[in-house]
Amino acid sequence: MSLNILFAARADRWPLWRAPLQAALTAEGLAADLSPDHPPETADYIVYAPGGPLTDFTPCTRAKAVLCLWAGVESIVTNPTLTQPLARMVDPGLTQGMVEYVTGHVLRHHLGMDAHILRQAGWRQVAPPLASERSVTLLGLGALGQACARALTALGFPVTGWSRTAHDVPGLTCLHGDAGLARALSTAQILVTLLPLTPDTENLLDARRLALLPRGATLINPGRGGLIDDTALLAALDTGQVGHATLDVFRIEPLPPDHPYWSHPRVTVTPHIAADTRPETASRVIAANIRRSEAGQPLLHMVDRARGY
Amino acid sequence: MSLNILFAARADRWPLWRAPLQAALTAEGLAADLSPDHPPETADYIVYAPGGPLTDFTPCTRAKAVLCLWAGVESIVTNPTLTQPLARMVDPGLTQGMVEYVTGHVLRHHLGMDAHILRQAGWRQVAPPLASERSVTLLGLGALGQACARALTALGFPVTGWSRTAHDVPGLTCLHGDAGLARALSTAQILVTLLPLTPDTENLLDARRLALLPRGATLINPGRGGLIDDTALLAALDTGQVGHATLDVFRIEPLPPDHPYWSHPRVTVTPHIAADTRPETASRVIAANIRRSEAGQPLLHMVDRARGY
Repeated sequence: MSLNILFAARADRWPLWRAPLQAALTAEGLAADLSPDHPPETADYIVYAPGGPLTDFTPCTRAKAVLCLWAGVESIVTNPTLTQPLARMVDPGLTQGMVEYVTGHVLRHHLGMDAHILRQAGWRQVAPPLASERSVTLLGLGALGQACARALTALGFPVTGWSRTAHDVPGLTCLHGDAGLARALSTAQILVTLLPLTPDTENLLDARRLALLPRGATLINPGRGGLIDDTALLAALDTGQVGHATLDVFRIEPLPPDHPYWSHPRVTVTPHIAADTRPETASRVIAANIRRSEAGQPLLHMVDRARGY
Repeated sequence: MSLNILFAARADRWPLWRAPLQAALTAEGLAADLSPDHPPETADYIVYAPGGPLTDFTPCTRAKAVLCLWAGVESIVTNPTLTQPLARMVDPGLTQGMVEYVTGHVLRHHLGMDAHILRQAGWRQVAPPLASERSVTLLGLGALGQACARALTALGFPVTGWSRTAHDVPGLTCLHGDAGLARALSTAQILVTLLPLTPDTENLLDARRLALLPRGATLINPGRGGLIDDTALLAALDTGQVGHATLDVFRIEPLPPDHPYWSHPRVTVTPHIAADTRPETASRVIAANIRRSEAGQPLLHMVDRARGY
């Protein structure tokens, strides 16, 4: 018997996902009828991304799981109509993309590339210190944070990782909790934020915490816009307490054209491109999870509603 | 008995090198009188960098070796008065700096950072391909080339390495000779030149070879300025055959203020900062080599005059 799989996302996503999802389902040996047009009450599984017409999950009584195409689930986890099991995306393509973005922008700031790219430096031979003399702090030690930490450590950067609860990752200085956060910020010549957005992490980087950074520190945020108190960051940039911010994610996206981040001389905006879910690799994750569920195995990458991710 | 060690380099280098060299010599258990003022005929060893007053090595009849502080020896290897053994610098600090520069600029071009740094991109969400879809070619598989290849391979880039004579480096596609060069260039979305400058490699990248690159390829040259035919490169940049060149080394340094590289929209100039010899680590290499020589062991990093490096 064929499974009804509802593709619930923005209409313009369907052409990108149809073929890779169908191929991955077939490769897993699943007989599946994949469509964006199944009535919600007939869906066995729901492949979900924010922005589509499905916002009320009450009628989806047959659905065995909602499988999110995004790593960040803050827009769905608080939906009170969602009672079905929810899995988030852990996509090797997304992780790899994030490693490239974070490693590239850490090296860009470490090497002081902007002065040369903007033709402001001329022939002034000041070689940067080696990576071993540049301390990097990562906030967040999930799949993305740990992969970035490994890449930066391999390049010689001393890396401190912080997470809300205790982690132990070989090769890193691991800190946690409030006291750990103060220490992690105090040594962060370059700070990278890769935390999920939850009520606990919203506005984590506020005026008080930004003041704990070494003067002139660099901030790279490819995590979530809501992790940062924007007003506090703009003030810290104005005084030079934060030397530069490279921001990929924002409270409102696209970032509104009149937002001060666009024009601030100490800000680089990238348009939420740090880590795309890649249809080829992510479709395999979705299909493998449906196959597991059909075989009576537990879903992978389940969201803990209490933690919010 | 104390060794006379002549420091023969530009006068402004002495304050940078005096303490680390003296410390390294002491650490090796060598009784040494290190000075820039020894008469050449009294020197047991000569620590050399280009630009100093010593250009005629004829009087240095007592010198057991000339130890160059630079990795590139093209300015001394052809000196007909130099008959003493010549060693060049293989400095772990220099190698690490080169790895950081090459990895950083490869990622910069791979990720298309400049459009965001120069505020030309706006909110256009085109995620770059993954590193696994971006082929990089390294010309030169010496200590520097191999270290860069390892770092790029670890990030997922498919790397092709080319050298004049056959090398076999695990994890790389290794090519050599003229036919190999044509193949290595034909797949180089990003090309990095790390060859020594010799009569064989001078102007290696001429108009004919630049035309073998995929259209719009990126060139990164942290090797030697003379590897590139500058007129041919400027022409290839004008037509877009080469999409961008990031150049760290030049035939004349500092690069003259009126040189077209400074203003070309497709060129980034960095002022020979890719890889500095680091006094701390390099001094240990020099002192260890003198200790070997005094113990009757062969010098490390000997220059082969016939090859020119």
